[in-house]
Amino acid sequence: MSTKFDVIIIGGGPGGTPAAMQLASQGKTVLLVEESGKLGGACLFVGCIPSKIIRHWADEYAVKLKYSAQEALSPEDREAAWNEIMRKMQTILSQRSGAAMQMLKHLSNLRFVAGHAKFVSNNELVINEKDTGRKEKYTFNKAIIATGSHSFIPPFKGNGVQDVLTSEVLFSQDKLPESLLIIGGGPIGIELAQMLTKLGTKCTIIELLDSILYGVVETEFVSIISNQLSSLGVNIYTSSQVQEINKSDGHFDVTFTDANGSEHKENFEDVLVVTGKVPNIESLNLDSTDIKYDRKGIIVDEYLETSVKGIYATGDVTHGPKFAHTATYEAHIASANISAGNNQKVDFSKNTWVLFSEPEIVAAGFTEAQAVQEGYDIITGVYDYKIDAAAQVMNSPFGYLKYVVNKKNSEIIGVHICMNNASSLAGEASLIIANRLILKNVAETIHPHPTLTEAFGILAQKMLSKS
Amino acid sequence: MSTKFDVIIIGGGPGGTPAAMQLASQGKTVLLVEESGKLGGACLFVGCIPSKIIRHWADEYAVKLKYSAQEALSPEDREAAWNEIMRKMQTILSQRSGAAMQMLKHLSNLRFVAGHAKFVSNNELVINEKDTGRKEKYTFNKAIIATGSHSFIPPFKGNGVQDVLTSEVLFSQDKLPESLLIIGGGPIGIELAQMLTKLGTKCTIIELLDSILYGVVETEFVSIISNQLSSLGVNIYTSSQVQEINKSDGHFDVTFTDANGSEHKENFEDVLVVTGKVPNIESLNLDSTDIKYDRKGIIVDEYLETSVKGIYATGDVTHGPKFAHTATYEAHIASANISAGNNQKVDFSKNTWVLFSEPEIVAAGFTEAQAVQEGYDIITGVYDYKIDAAAQVMNSPFGYLKYVVNKKNSEIIGVHICMNNASSLAGEASLIIANRLILKNVAETIHPHPTLTEAFGILAQKMLSKS
Repeated sequence: MSTKFDVIIIGGGPGGTPAAMQLASQGKTVLLVEESGKLGGACLFVGCIPSKIIRHWADEYAVKLKYSAQEALSPEDREAAWNEIMRKMQTILSQRSGAAMQMLKHLSNLRFVAGHAKFVSNNELVINEKDTGRKEKYTFNKAIIATGSHSFIPPFKGNGVQDVLTSEVLFSQDKLPESLLIIGGGPIGIELAQMLTKLGTKCTIIELLDSILYGVVETEFVSIISNQLSSLGVNIYTSSQVQEINKSDGHFDVTFTDANGSEHKENFEDVLVVTGKVPNIESLNLDSTDIKYDRKGIIVDEYLETSVKGIYATGDVTHGPKFAHTATYEAHIASANISAGNNQKVDFSKNTWVLFSEPEIVAAGFTEAQAVQEGYDIITGVYDYKIDAAAQVMNSPFGYLKYVVNKKNSEIIGVHICMNNASSLAGEASLIIANRLILKNVAETIHPHPTLTEAFGILAQKMLSKS
Repeated sequence: MSTKFDVIIIGGGPGGTPAAMQLASQGKTVLLVEESGKLGGACLFVGCIPSKIIRHWADEYAVKLKYSAQEALSPEDREAAWNEIMRKMQTILSQRSGAAMQMLKHLSNLRFVAGHAKFVSNNELVINEKDTGRKEKYTFNKAIIATGSHSFIPPFKGNGVQDVLTSEVLFSQDKLPESLLIIGGGPIGIELAQMLTKLGTKCTIIELLDSILYGVVETEFVSIISNQLSSLGVNIYTSSQVQEINKSDGHFDVTFTDANGSEHKENFEDVLVVTGKVPNIESLNLDSTDIKYDRKGIIVDEYLETSVKGIYATGDVTHGPKFAHTATYEAHIASANISAGNNQKVDFSKNTWVLFSEPEIVAAGFTEAQAVQEGYDIITGVYDYKIDAAAQVMNSPFGYLKYVVNKKNSEIIGVHICMNNASSLAGEASLIIANRLILKNVAETIHPHPTLTEAFGILAQKMLSKS
C-alpha cells in the first residue's frame, strides 16, 4: 500500500473529517489519521453533544418532577437518571461516530488510520498505529493539522489537584456528586452548572474575572443568567481566586479568596476545572518542521496556511474561535484552498455560537462592545419578547433580541438573542451576519405570525423608522 | 372636530392598524374605523392567536397526563381545562388589544372611531358610531379597506345547518363537545382537530378534495400529518361530501358520501365548518363607488390600489393570501404607496406561513408543484433530520427540510420544513426567500452546532457539491 498521499489530515474531529471527505470526493488521495480510532472529536465525545444530551434529559426530569408529588430527586432517582442518560448518550455517540465512518468507507481514495501522527519533516510524518503498534512513515503533498485542544488546569496548590475533573472525564463518571465546585464561569461552566443542578447536584462557581461569561455575550444578558443560576441555588463567586485544593476522606477541601479578599474554606465532593483549553500540539513534533506556533496554538494566515507552504491548520489547534461549527467552516476553507490554490479567506466576523444556558443565548457577529472596539460607529436596538405574540401564546413572554448596526450603511453586524429556544432562531441571525444584510432586507421579509421570528422584522422596521 | 382626513382606514386588524400607525407617525391625519371597537381583527380574537393558545395548553395537558396515573382527562378535568384555557386566553387577548390601543393614543393626528363604515362616493363615507348610533359623513383624500373576511358555510341541506359552529364562535363555547365533525381538511381544520383531540374531543374530518391540506403544503408532508391524525384517533374522510345536517335531541345527524360513493350517517355533538373564508364586503356599499370586486374580494393592482385612484385594499378582503402577517406586509406597502406615490409592489412569491400542526410545517416561497407550474426548471433537495445532531440530542430525530431551487441560477425559491418546532426555523426560510439568496449564500453561512439550523447549511452544501 502506498505511503504517499496528496493530503494527510491529522484529526478526525469537526476540523478534520469534513476536509478529508471534501478532498477525497474531489479525487485527491487522502489519509485521515485519528489517534482515538473514532471519528467525532472532542465535540462528539466529551464536549457539546454529551453536554446537550445531559441538558435535554435534565430538563425532562425537571418537568417530570414538576408533575409528580416529589420535591426533589431521591439519591436512587438520581443514580437511575444518570445511568439512563449515560446509556442514551452512548447510543447516540456510537451511532454518530459509526455513521461518519460508514460515509468515509464510500470514498475509495480515502484511507483511515487509527494512530498517532508525528512530523519528521515539512512533508513527512510517522504514524504509530494504535492497534498494531507498527510505525510507518508517510509522505504528503499537502496536510491539515486538526488535532484540537484539551482542558487546561492552572497550577493550583494542594494534593487534590491531581484528582480534579475536567470536561473530558466528567461525562464518563459513574455517578453525579452531591456537591460540585466548578472553577471557571465561562460558557462550559455555566451550562454544566445549570444542568447538573437540575439533576440534583449542589453547584458552586468560582470565577477569576469580575463577571461570569466575561466578554463573550452581551453584558445585559449576563445578569439574566446570573439570576437564573441564583434562583436554582447555585453559589457564584466572581473576582475570586482558588488558592489550594486538598483531598481528604473522599472530599475536596478548597481554599479561595472572594471579591473582598476574604478567605473561604469549603468542601465539595468533586471539583471540575473549566478554565480554558490548550491546543494539542506537544506530541506532533512540530519542531521537526518550520511550522510556527506558540502556547495558544499553531499560527495560520487568513487562508489557514501555516508558515510551511501546503500545511494548513483548522479548529481548536489554531488561535481561532474554539467551536465545532467554526472548525468545520475552517475545514471547508482549507480544503478549498488546497484544491484550487489559496483563494478563500476565513472571516471570523461572521462567526456565531449558542450558549445552551437557560435561557439560551445566541451570539452572531460582533457584540456591542466588540463593534465599538473594532471602531464601528454603531446604533443598537432591542426587541422585548414581553410584547411578543408567539412568546405570550407559549406562556413564555421573556427574552430579548438585539441588533448591533453599522450606522454608516445600516448593515447588521451583530445579532444577539437571549430567550428559551433561541438556538432555533440562530439560523436567521447567522444568515444575516454571513450575508451582510442591512436593516431593510430584514424589515421587508415576511415573517410568519405568530412565531418567535417576527421579532427580527419588527425590530428592523423600528430601527429603520428611527433612522 | 374635522370630518376630513388625509387617510381613512377601515378595519382595525393586521391589514389596517399598522397602516394607520405608519401613516399617522409620518404626519398624515388618519381616521381608523373598526366596527367591533377593538383592535386586533379576526387573527387576534377568533383566529391564529386563540387557536395557538389552546394548542399550547392542549400540549401542556398532554404532558401532564403522560406523567400522571390517569389514562385520559375526565369530563371534569376537561371542563376545568377548557375554562382555564379560556381565562388565560381572555387575559392575552385583552392585553394585546389594549396595548395596541395605547400605542394609537400616542399618535396625536390619529383618530379612532368604533363604528361601521359605508361608502357613499369615491371620497366620502358615513360612519354609524357603535356606542352613540350617531351617523357622520367623513371625507378622505386616500383610503385603505382592510375589513377582512368571515367563515363561509356551503349550502348544505338540513335543519341543523343554522346551528353549526364556525371558527368565529368556537373559541367562545362554554365547553368542548364530546364529539365533533370538522367539515374541511384545510389548515384550520387540521390544527383544530389535533388540539381538540388532545383535550379529549373525538374528532372526525370530512374533506371534499382527495387529500387534506390539498395543494398548500409539500405533498410528501401531507401523509406525515395524516398519520399523526390517525394515531391520535381522528377519522379522516377525503373525497367525501356532506349531504345533509340535521339536529335532533341535542346532537347533529350528518349524512355524507365517502370516496367510494357509499352513504354514511353519523351523529356528533357539534359540527364545525371550516371550508373557507369570504371577504367582508357586503355592507361597505361598494356600489356607491367605482371600486371593482367579485365574490373573492376587492380587486387591487400590484400596488394594492383598487380601481379607484387613492383607495387601497389590504388583507383578507382582497384576492391575496389570507394570513395576518401577509395583511401586515400589505399594510406597510399600501402606506408607503400612499405616502410616496405608487412605488412599492407586492411580491407574494416571497410569502411564507406556518401550519401549527404536529409536527409543524413551514412553507416559504414556492412549493415544488407551484414552482413547476410557474415554469421554473428546478432541482430539489431534502435533509432528513434523522441524522441531525440537535434533533438526536433533543430525542426528536424526525423531520425534513426541503429546498426548491431554480436550476438556472441556484436561487432557492422554496423552503419547506416539517418537524417539531419548525416555526422557529421559519425566519431563516423567510429571509432566504425574501432576499433571493442562492445556495452558496446559505452554504457559506456558519450555523452553530448543535442546532436545528445546521440543516440549512448542510443541505445547501450537499446540493452545491452535486451541481
